[in-house]
Amino acid sequence: MSSERPPIGVDPTAQEELRALAQEEHIELPDWVAGMHPSDIADFVASVTSEAGQLEILEALPDEVASETLAEMEEYEDRAELLSALDDKRGAALLQELADDDAADLLGEMEPDDRDRMLAALPSTEAGEIRDLLRYGEETAGGLMTTALVSVAAESSGGEAIAEIRRQGREVEDFYSVFVVGDKDRLRGTVPLADLILADPEAPVESLVEPISAVVHPGTDQEEVGRIMARYNLVSIPVVDEEGALLGQITFDDVIDVIEAETTEDILKLAGVSDEEELQAGWGDSVRSRLPWLTLNLVTAGLAAMVILRFEGLIAQFAFLAFLMPVIAALGGNTGTQALAVTIRRIAVGDGLGSHHFPAVGKEVLVGLVNGLVLGGLFAAFAYLWWGGDPRIGLVVLLAMWANIIVAGFAGALIPTVLDRLGVDPAVASSVFVHTLTDLVGFVMVLSLASALL
Amino acid sequence: MSSERPPIGVDPTAQEELRALAQEEHIELPDWVAGMHPSDIADFVASVTSEAGQLEILEALPDEVASETLAEMEEYEDRAELLSALDDKRGAALLQELADDDAADLLGEMEPDDRDRMLAALPSTEAGEIRDLLRYGEETAGGLMTTALVSVAAESSGGEAIAEIRRQGREVEDFYSVFVVGDKDRLRGTVPLADLILADPEAPVESLVEPISAVVHPGTDQEEVGRIMARYNLVSIPVVDEEGALLGQITFDDVIDVIEAETTEDILKLAGVSDEEELQAGWGDSVRSRLPWLTLNLVTAGLAAMVILRFEGLIAQFAFLAFLMPVIAALGGNTGTQALAVTIRRIAVGDGLGSHHFPAVGKEVLVGLVNGLVLGGLFAAFAYLWWGGDPRIGLVVLLAMWANIIVAGFAGALIPTVLDRLGVDPAVASSVFVHTLTDLVGFVMVLSLASALL
Repeated sequence: MSSERPPIGVDPTAQEELRALAQEEHIELPDWVAGMHPSDIADFVASVTSEAGQLEILEALPDEVASETLAEMEEYEDRAELLSALDDKRGAALLQELADDDAADLLGEMEPDDRDRMLAALPSTEAGEIRDLLRYGEETAGGLMTTALVSVAAESSGGEAIAEIRRQGREVEDFYSVFVVGDKDRLRGTVPLADLILADPEAPVESLVEPISAVVHPGTDQEEVGRIMARYNLVSIPVVDEEGALLGQITFDDVIDVIEAETTEDILKLAGVSDEEELQAGWGDSVRSRLPWLTLNLVTAGLAAMVILRFEGLIAQFAFLAFLMPVIAALGGNTGTQALAVTIRRIAVGDGLGSHHFPAVGKEVLVGLVNGLVLGGLFAAFAYLWWGGDPRIGLVVLLAMWANIIVAGFAGALIPTVLDRLGVDPAVASSVFVHTLTDLVGFVMVLSLASALL
Repeated sequence: MSSERPPIGVDPTAQEELRALAQEEHIELPDWVAGMHPSDIADFVASVTSEAGQLEILEALPDEVASETLAEMEEYEDRAELLSALDDKRGAALLQELADDDAADLLGEMEPDDRDRMLAALPSTEAGEIRDLLRYGEETAGGLMTTALVSVAAESSGGEAIAEIRRQGREVEDFYSVFVVGDKDRLRGTVPLADLILADPEAPVESLVEPISAVVHPGTDQEEVGRIMARYNLVSIPVVDEEGALLGQITFDDVIDVIEAETTEDILKLAGVSDEEELQAGWGDSVRSRLPWLTLNLVTAGLAAMVILRFEGLIAQFAFLAFLMPVIAALGGNTGTQALAVTIRRIAVGDGLGSHHFPAVGKEVLVGLVNGLVLGGLFAAFAYLWWGGDPRIGLVVLLAMWANIIVAGFAGALIPTVLDRLGVDPAVASSVFVHTLTDLVGFVMVLSLASALL
């Protein structure tokens, strides 16, 4: 194994040194940093506390390293500012080093004025290509695709195709698929590079064409792109227009990034964090992204608990109800969270037939029947023993817990399924609905059973 | 675009037809099913209710389609049983069609007796290769890798290398990297296939070798493999032994599956569902996977609420405390969930320098300070107005809510970070800890402030 580039990550002593450097105001870059993988340099730059220091690093790195470093800093909000702070000539030089999709992503994050300035500093053909890409929404196939690809005409021979690939390949790094196009750039299929090498050079490309198992359009949502590529194990997917003409391609590495970003979004939304909060967000952004949801929760939790105020007399008489209610509500909430997580994840991963969803509701009810009986039984036994063997208290506890856990399983599976069918993202709203319901059912069951039986 | 294979998924009429078929006891397979993508056939087979029907489908499909269908049924627990139910000769024929890693995965899921029977029906070299793979843990690099790869000797010329790749390439489908090995199979680097085609055939391969940015060992955890490949955008990663000899490779499609499986696991664990529960699990498995966690929650929620029992006199006097406590505990719990989700996701996505974690605790406390003040203020204003303008009630509410939300942010960020440093998976235990704490703090704050101030 070659050692031109330090091994994965950085070694512990180097890490130590980088961590110390990151705290400094002005940074003298050790030579070996330029030999690190751009992903590792990106993390280092992001960890540097002063913007002046970050700029010094980018200025000290060669163009091809500095540009890839910026491209790998995707998660950091201020990377576009860093690029804007470089002088126009250097900024344009870095953008030219990048694949057009990465360049467009960076420019898309810039202030409009800075963007125009940078585009003006680029050669006009490249500026034009990037402008085309900037028209597409950031979270669409158009926003992910690169126009850099290798394609050959269906009528050429294997040998001609290889010559053509040699020519185009100098411009396109890392290509995995050779696209075959017919009349008016219409996509006909692909030829795996490997097949082309293996084949007789005289054979027409036509005879080697493999059908495409999936294409997407520029407007296709990135989540859908990720789902298709993961489902069909595709190393790259072509993007075509309405007429089937080839516009660009999306490669597996972009899709891995999309899958990671989309799952981060799902996990955070399920926890009530807005999808606009980046993992590296500052405290102000976090407050803005979380406070609305918490306020909604305050209102719904408050409304559900209002039922308690209607039974103040009962509670004054049997104060232990104040102990039973939160425990029964909590177990309902946890059961609901379990059913929600399984259902939302099943919707996210998807299956081709779109079935299995409503039967899942039945399953969750069944699970709730069993779990509710066990947990209700345990808690009822405790209550029976604690309150001097009054079987009525045990019965209140058993029935309230059991009912709440069944409702929790039912709602946890049904609500996201219904929201998904209605075209609403199930991760956002489901947990508020489910938890308000389990609070309410828990309180009402305990209080009404207690007032009937005690 | 060719139309030999129906477009992505299946068209709506076909979907309808498949859904109806899936309910039948005996299945006559329409011809067009064999032309569908194996991933789509896999979903269809999994949706069929009778095992006899599932077998009929596999029996009706040609070997290369039936084998890929089984390989794509990864998420379905009973696929190994299906393979066992085929006669040995057909079973062996299907296994021979598959890449060795997929074959090993399937055999690994079989009962030991069935596995030995199938292995005996395979040609001895293939059986040996698969046996070697079966030695590795299922969730390790060894368990993911395939030994099918294309490698050339460092001392060969470009032309010789292409001839060698032609020879090996017939055995290996879809290869993206050509590995270059030296003495004793030691990995020297890779040559992108594209570069080899572009290069002068006389040039020695040695001159084209690119250093490898990462290797893994057979024992490396699959989560780590996924993290490295995603971080460095690798289409495949070599697996080497202690001496650096090349053993196999792991390709991007396996990694996408790993990333999806690992995030499913993280989401479910965060929600208190054991990582052994498959998304398609039956109700019995779901009960087994969820009940232990719910029981633990019953104990912890019960213990936290026990503090309420110590204040029964106070509650009998001020029954509205039974209303305040669950709302304040719920908001603490939700704040804790937000901080937990962000922190756990940040740990999962990882960064090269391993820093940023403890500072995140400070940020969450700051967020809690602000959110707690706002929410506490709102709820205090409500309480003040509702209970006839008694400012002491408002003060109890404000202080209890504020303190609980700060503690929630602190614990939600600190606990997973500490667990991660201790080498414990932060997703499992964190939420029990955090929610028990926020319940306890919520109850204690309300009750002790009320008993001091009212």
